[in-house]
Amino acid sequence: MALETVSTNKAFGGTQGVYRHASTATGTDMTFSVYVPPGAEAGARLPVIWYLSGLTCTHANVTEKGEFRRACAELGLIFVAPDTSPRGEAVPDDPAGAYDFGLGAGFYVDATEAPYAANYRMYSYVTEELPALIAAHFPADMGAQAITGHSMGGHGALTIALRNPDRYRSVSAFAPIVSPLRCPWGEKALGGYLGPDRATWRAHDATALIEDGARVPAILIDQGGADSFLEGQLKPGLLAQACEAAGIPLTLRMQDGYDHSYYFISTFLADHLRWHAERLGRR
Amino acid sequence: MALETVSTNKAFGGTQGVYRHASTATGTDMTFSVYVPPGAEAGARLPVIWYLSGLTCTHANVTEKGEFRRACAELGLIFVAPDTSPRGEAVPDDPAGAYDFGLGAGFYVDATEAPYAANYRMYSYVTEELPALIAAHFPADMGAQAITGHSMGGHGALTIALRNPDRYRSVSAFAPIVSPLRCPWGEKALGGYLGPDRATWRAHDATALIEDGARVPAILIDQGGADSFLEGQLKPGLLAQACEAAGIPLTLRMQDGYDHSYYFISTFLADHLRWHAERLGRR
Repeated sequence: MALETVSTNKAFGGTQGVYRHASTATGTDMTFSVYVPPGAEAGARLPVIWYLSGLTCTHANVTEKGEFRRACAELGLIFVAPDTSPRGEAVPDDPAGAYDFGLGAGFYVDATEAPYAANYRMYSYVTEELPALIAAHFPADMGAQAITGHSMGGHGALTIALRNPDRYRSVSAFAPIVSPLRCPWGEKALGGYLGPDRATWRAHDATALIEDGARVPAILIDQGGADSFLEGQLKPGLLAQACEAAGIPLTLRMQDGYDHSYYFISTFLADHLRWHAERLGRR
Repeated sequence: MALETVSTNKAFGGTQGVYRHASTATGTDMTFSVYVPPGAEAGARLPVIWYLSGLTCTHANVTEKGEFRRACAELGLIFVAPDTSPRGEAVPDDPAGAYDFGLGAGFYVDATEAPYAANYRMYSYVTEELPALIAAHFPADMGAQAITGHSMGGHGALTIALRNPDRYRSVSAFAPIVSPLRCPWGEKALGGYLGPDRATWRAHDATALIEDGARVPAILIDQGGADSFLEGQLKPGLLAQACEAAGIPLTLRMQDGYDHSYYFISTFLADHLRWHAERLGRR
């Protein structure tokens, strides 16, 4: 598993890197970023926090705008930010070039429908191939992983944590899509990647996974009250109902006046990192 | 002085705004950003920190990548980030389109040479027109101003503070150009904007200003040890010599392993804000 270093920059005493590799899962080159905090030099293995990004994003958005490095340096967390889809001229995109399907919109599933099934395997990429690469190339304690994400990436974080409760010790999200079965973004994406049988979608719907018996110890969600996608796409109340029925402790913080942007995420990301660090035994 | 709001986003309890106005100084529209921390709602007037950006930048670079809002919110500082030059199709650029002159490279001087003199009046813009606009439209205590900047903007911060010691209570810089008289960037820019008489350049050279008698109470500088421009362009040792001869307390921190990027700036910008806040009576 060869890894090409695109760039490294010292930041907050650690190293912010961007890396590229030939992905078996997606059949394309994939780029991701990793922040390694200070303290790993002496041979220590550090916990890993996964950050899954939203529609239209690459690794770069959170890497440049997320303001996570100060807290990661203080808490001793490795921060990994994957891309949101396969990329390249040979990769099929949305037929109309829309932002909410295809490139930049992999939805963290393994597609079964043509022509997407060959490349759009972001579930396998994020849960299998990239973790193996991180374990091989970085000072990571793969026994101490946590996951978070934003919007489509919040959907990714919640569904991946619910499907892999032994892997991720904690899960949080920013303005997540909590039920792709019940919003236009989700219906388009899961229909396109997984086909018309909505029963197959339930394995990639956080609310449905909980209804069907999946469990995690706790969930933290921040949601901007001025987020223009709140009512039409995100619908955190659906997750709150499912968590209440299932007995999953959900901390759902409605943040008055905040929108869907990185100005919102950067305000609260350090809070989430501290919450994860407690559950990873780092405080 | 009409002001157009381009965008506002809630962040760290305050408001990050981007604004546009028709500038008298430059004869063009100018865009800038202002962060107003929480606490201004009750009618309080808050101190102002000016951040001057480097070559190729607009207001957006530090606004997106600077990681200053958490500290500004804690300290109660308004953070203003101007553009680095006039912009527009009618504005003369570097004849060869180089990055280090013309658009994105105003060097915080009032040009006297054709064809630049009509628009390239960034000294007047940053010290007169924009402060008046800030005073009129934001809850700013214009009796409590501080200034900092990066690279070309560090040069701007140092020279503007040295020329206006009654205006700015404190000054700091990140990897500043300390003597445009003695580096290729400076020779090209000041020659192009001010003409061949190097005596006129001294009023826009921090080291020469100090040699010629200008004084500030103290200077804080962070400089990356792995900055590729350190030896050829920045030369902080020239400023250190002038400060030592003049009895100006200079804290020059060489930061091992850091480069010239916003990964460096964001690591130390909160430190600078705290340093300025102390001098502005905010701690």
